[in-house]
Amino acid sequence: MALKSKLLLVALLLSVLFLSVYVASATQDPDLKQEEEKEFQGRQQEDQNPYFFEDEHFETRVQTEEGRFQLLQKFTERSDLLRAIENYRIGFLDTKPHAFVAPSHFDADTVLFVFQGRPTVTIVRGEKRESHNLERGDLFRIPAGTPVYMVNRDENEKLFIVEFMKPVSVPGEYEVFYAAGGENPESFFKAFSPQVLQAALKTEMNKLERLFGQQRQGSITRASEEQIKKLSQQHDQGGSEGFWPFHGGQSSSDAFNLFSKHPSQANKFGRLFEADFNDFKQLQDLDLLVSFANITQGAMVGPYFNSRATKISFVLDGEGYFEMASPHVSSTGRQEQQPQPQKSSPWYQKISGNLRRGAVFVAPAGHPVTAIASRNSNLQIICFEVNAHDNIRVPLAGKKNVVSQFDREAKELAFNVPAREVDRIFNNQDDEFFFEGPNEQPEHGRAYA
Amino acid sequence: MALKSKLLLVALLLSVLFLSVYVASATQDPDLKQEEEKEFQGRQQEDQNPYFFEDEHFETRVQTEEGRFQLLQKFTERSDLLRAIENYRIGFLDTKPHAFVAPSHFDADTVLFVFQGRPTVTIVRGEKRESHNLERGDLFRIPAGTPVYMVNRDENEKLFIVEFMKPVSVPGEYEVFYAAGGENPESFFKAFSPQVLQAALKTEMNKLERLFGQQRQGSITRASEEQIKKLSQQHDQGGSEGFWPFHGGQSSSDAFNLFSKHPSQANKFGRLFEADFNDFKQLQDLDLLVSFANITQGAMVGPYFNSRATKISFVLDGEGYFEMASPHVSSTGRQEQQPQPQKSSPWYQKISGNLRRGAVFVAPAGHPVTAIASRNSNLQIICFEVNAHDNIRVPLAGKKNVVSQFDREAKELAFNVPAREVDRIFNNQDDEFFFEGPNEQPEHGRAYA
Amino acid sequence: MALKSKLLLVALLLSVLFLSVYVASATQDPDLKQEEEKEFQGRQQEDQNPYFFEDEHFETRVQTEEGRFQLLQKFTERSDLLRAIENYRIGFLDTKPHAFVAPSHFDADTVLFVFQGRPTVTIVRGEKRESHNLERGDLFRIPAGTPVYMVNRDENEKLFIVEFMKPVSVPGEYEVFYAAGGENPESFFKAFSPQVLQAALKTEMNKLERLFGQQRQGSITRASEEQIKKLSQQHDQGGSEGFWPFHGGQSSSDAFNLFSKHPSQANKFGRLFEADFNDFKQLQDLDLLVSFANITQGAMVGPYFNSRATKISFVLDGEGYFEMASPHVSSTGRQEQQPQPQKSSPWYQKISGNLRRGAVFVAPAGHPVTAIASRNSNLQIICFEVNAHDNIRVPLAGKKNVVSQFDREAKELAFNVPAREVDRIFNNQDDEFFFEGPNEQPEHGRAYA
Repeated sequence: MALKSKLLLVALLLSVLFLSVYVASATQDPDLKQEEEKEFQGRQQEDQNPYFFEDEHFETRVQTEEGRFQLLQKFTERSDLLRAIENYRIGFLDTKPHAFVAPSHFDADTVLFVFQGRPTVTIVRGEKRESHNLERGDLFRIPAGTPVYMVNRDENEKLFIVEFMKPVSVPGEYEVFYAAGGENPESFFKAFSPQVLQAALKTEMNKLERLFGQQRQGSITRASEEQIKKLSQQHDQGGSEGFWPFHGGQSSSDAFNLFSKHPSQANKFGRLFEADFNDFKQLQDLDLLVSFANITQGAMVGPYFNSRATKISFVLDGEGYFEMASPHVSSTGRQEQQPQPQKSSPWYQKISGNLRRGAVFVAPAGHPVTAIASRNSNLQIICFEVNAHDNIRVPLAGKKNVVSQFDREAKELAFNVPAREVDRIFNNQDDEFFFEGPNEQPEHGRAYA
Repeated sequence: MALKSKLLLVALLLSVLFLSVYVASATQDPDLKQEEEKEFQGRQQEDQNPYFFEDEHFETRVQTEEGRFQLLQKFTERSDLLRAIENYRIGFLDTKPHAFVAPSHFDADTVLFVFQGRPTVTIVRGEKRESHNLERGDLFRIPAGTPVYMVNRDENEKLFIVEFMKPVSVPGEYEVFYAAGGENPESFFKAFSPQVLQAALKTEMNKLERLFGQQRQGSITRASEEQIKKLSQQHDQGGSEGFWPFHGGQSSSDAFNLFSKHPSQANKFGRLFEADFNDFKQLQDLDLLVSFANITQGAMVGPYFNSRATKISFVLDGEGYFEMASPHVSSTGRQEQQPQPQKSSPWYQKISGNLRRGAVFVAPAGHPVTAIASRNSNLQIICFEVNAHDNIRVPLAGKKNVVSQFDREAKELAFNVPAREVDRIFNNQDDEFFFEGPNEQPEHGRAYA
Repeated sequence: MALKSKLLLVALLLSVLFLSVYVASATQDPDLKQEEEKEFQGRQQEDQNPYFFEDEHFETRVQTEEGRFQLLQKFTERSDLLRAIENYRIGFLDTKPHAFVAPSHFDADTVLFVFQGRPTVTIVRGEKRESHNLERGDLFRIPAGTPVYMVNRDENEKLFIVEFMKPVSVPGEYEVFYAAGGENPESFFKAFSPQVLQAALKTEMNKLERLFGQQRQGSITRASEEQIKKLSQQHDQGGSEGFWPFHGGQSSSDAFNLFSKHPSQANKFGRLFEADFNDFKQLQDLDLLVSFANITQGAMVGPYFNSRATKISFVLDGEGYFEMASPHVSSTGRQEQQPQPQKSSPWYQKISGNLRRGAVFVAPAGHPVTAIASRNSNLQIICFEVNAHDNIRVPLAGKKNVVSQFDREAKELAFNVPAREVDRIFNNQDDEFFFEGPNEQPEHGRAYA
């Protein structure tokens, strides 16, 4: 066979192959195809909006009769655009009244925020045991590797705690270790050889097997009233250097209550409570600021941007939506280069999503963002701002908006209109930070619009 | 059909396929093929010299009638060997006289160096606007997320500014956000829903459409003499805590002029001006040292190496070349292991490149490097040294060269010659840092020789 | 040809292809196949125990008649699970008596520990040369980029030094640069153009060729008694700011001897010596703690875990094994998600390995770990703990074990047995940290059991 003929044959075979694959896909079950297309679009949308997370992006780490712990996927699993927060995780704990969360330690520093319920958190540091009776609004830090257990001492209310974590070992990986336990939660003691365990604990194997064999109810169980009463009696029970009782009255002195401080922003459209390292020293080495925004129904916050910080927002209650301007995000998850010959400037796309309890959205440094509460309910959001040191919030509307502060000439040159026209518009809004919201709500059926 | 026959058939088909692909490639247009080979070699050379960048490694971010902003590609896009400087970017701004650069903010800390022109840089921090009249030699820092605009107040001279950036959000990614603008530069306000924008700015859509629809000239435009005069009148126009005028005379007090300090090295072969955080406090948290080297025509600098810092050099003017000794770089972009059975020590290759305005070369920590000016012109280089804290420059020739300081016995043992022979050679050169250059120039037609 | 026929043809071709590949693999040489399977299992085991390293994971960087330098592979080359220590390397230097290690500098900060021999280490900082006569037990830091050479001044004993390195340039990459040398070690001066070298050193090429052509014996050679005597006379020979002699008596004041401090743990089962930045200031910016454990034959250390630090252990002498509990490690090198429907808690696997000189094992933060000495010899281990700041060691057995410190109610709820049963077991062992080991040793034929 001549070379040319062989070439022809291959060309023929290849075209047959491609054509038939096309035909196969075109002739398959139409419902299935539609399904796939939807899923494909779904994925596409996800790629184009890596800043918004909903229920399906959470992983169930613990689920028992009494409660559950949900952990949001790794940010960089979603998109490389989130590398600024690669080493942070967020999740929430949701239990019934009187639930007990079994002793464990994590390979991460954790800051928790109590939104609902009245948890008593007990940690063991060195030879000292400390119990902290927390209340709604409390921030509390659990240092990495600290054994901790918790009980919801409220007999009527559910417990709802948001946890923000910074892993200390593998960046972005978060693991829980149970010392005490049995079959479920499995105790890590069971990973050691019987010989080693017997020597370490100086105890025969049959006794160890009994001890590590009884717990089968999982790591969130129900405590009796009596047990809760005892667990929530505050104490420090130290070794040589400890003394008892250490704590006084109601709320723990090692916690900080976000609502104990005057709001940093407040008007009829909303209130903002903020805690930085001056308020709560334990935020300092995490370079973290925590804030709670309560946006009145029908009102909005922003638009504004953060100069350095990346803000992770977790919706606690209410409904609404957010909008963010972002340099164009390509489907590959990397920011697209802008090789437009006519127009060399960057261009922005709207990132948006519908907000309800459990939704998470991320506003990277420099990205203008706004959030709007529905007309039916206040929108309550807890926010974690990382890279908080020297961060400035830059308002884009209302009093103190940045455009009004430009020189007259800069306004003219930038907008190519008379400066007074710029001023007329940017001086209209005279509220600050929280504003009256839009009359009609734009359509937000899709995560990315 | 028996299995063997099927196997035979597949083997036949595959061999036909491979053969025909080979034939196809061998019989294609010979010019085209040569072209491809050249390009392939080009890429290979690039891989073997990831430390040298020329025009084609810059991306045009802004290009208008009045000027342009060129940004060097991400260092790690070039090679993993540059991971030490992964989170830095370098670029330059090049405009006509009287050009105005539109207000924007970046998701990066920026240090700029004025090489040519007289820019007035205005930044807005909180409720305070500050204008800085900069001069040739000035270093100035723009904190991440700070709205900034600039005008070249010189009516005759072009503006040439080198910008060194450290992104605060996605490592190594650099984005510009325009609040004020229209079609080009596009304002990020246009990414928000009309409903949201109307509510935030309390203004009807038709007025907003007009405001954000007039600018089409791009982000670098021409300012009138009158506008420049007003923009360059220095002021701080603060809110409650600001006062006016804050600044006094000529150059800005928040800038540092590299040429205001005595050169740290100076002889007839060259001069070196350096600024560290003691000179310019704003370099401290960036862990940065900035230096300007002016190498006399026909002279050279080094060889030397930096103990900890990685040095990024940008050629401002003149011509010449650099040479650097590097442990062998494989084409995969990773440093090759040295499994040579005869010779277990590492081995070094020469990295080199021809220097002219806009060329960039990188000398990682520990790498011996030298730069040589052509016989026709002085070579002027601005250098950014990252990881500058505790860095020591170690001279390899001339006064204070490190070899001369070894013990007599170490010299003998290391070179396997009498110590006096070592001294005779290493004591010959009695200049320091800058030396008379070579009589003949080695061939440097290729980036990697 | 109808579309359906084409589809049929392609289906036929594809099935033929897959079938024939299967047949081909099934009919190949059976020995070869077995070989491959074994190799595959080998790799699998390695993947499942990325925390344990033996001889084959070291690379020989230098090997001469007089000694060798072995460098452990990059941690992340082994597994992404080791990203916490991505930017650290560990290795050892092993030479004959009277060996001389040629002058060089590295692109890494190095902390060395002298286990055997009496090295004199000479470093050149700025214009100052310092010699340090080190002894067994000394810790010494060589800052990155510092020219250094070394001689084993002991005429009878071998030198054995463990080196812990933190690269300053490319994360995890470690390169050595020889200024003085010739063919082997090759001097980096030879990478420069002859013209450049002649100008820099003001010396003709034939003389340079002679100088850089004599050394062929490699970077570890033998020094004469006279040379050693001179090299080990301590001195600082400074430039203008130096003076001589700086040092006084025996051991160097810039070193810290681990054995000079009281052991932080000691009983008949073992002793632990620790140095943190309070003892040796030069560990501070490396965020490092160094410890030396001597476990008596037949005894054990732990189990315990570190709250924040990741511990890298290098076995110096003796035999034994370690066991560690780890959240399940999948063969892909990533920690598996736990989507078990019945059992939502994590589960732990045993990571273990046989220990002998040169074995390295890593215990990440939070991971419970124990090491057991064989009945024949003490087990001596040098440990480097990174991320040491604020780290707490949490004991899991013996005095002060963490389980005993839980509230009575927490014990009951966690183990689902009466609290007194928990106490009975966890109070049995009344030694601390070091314990009597197991009577019989579990089988540890494989790295991962």
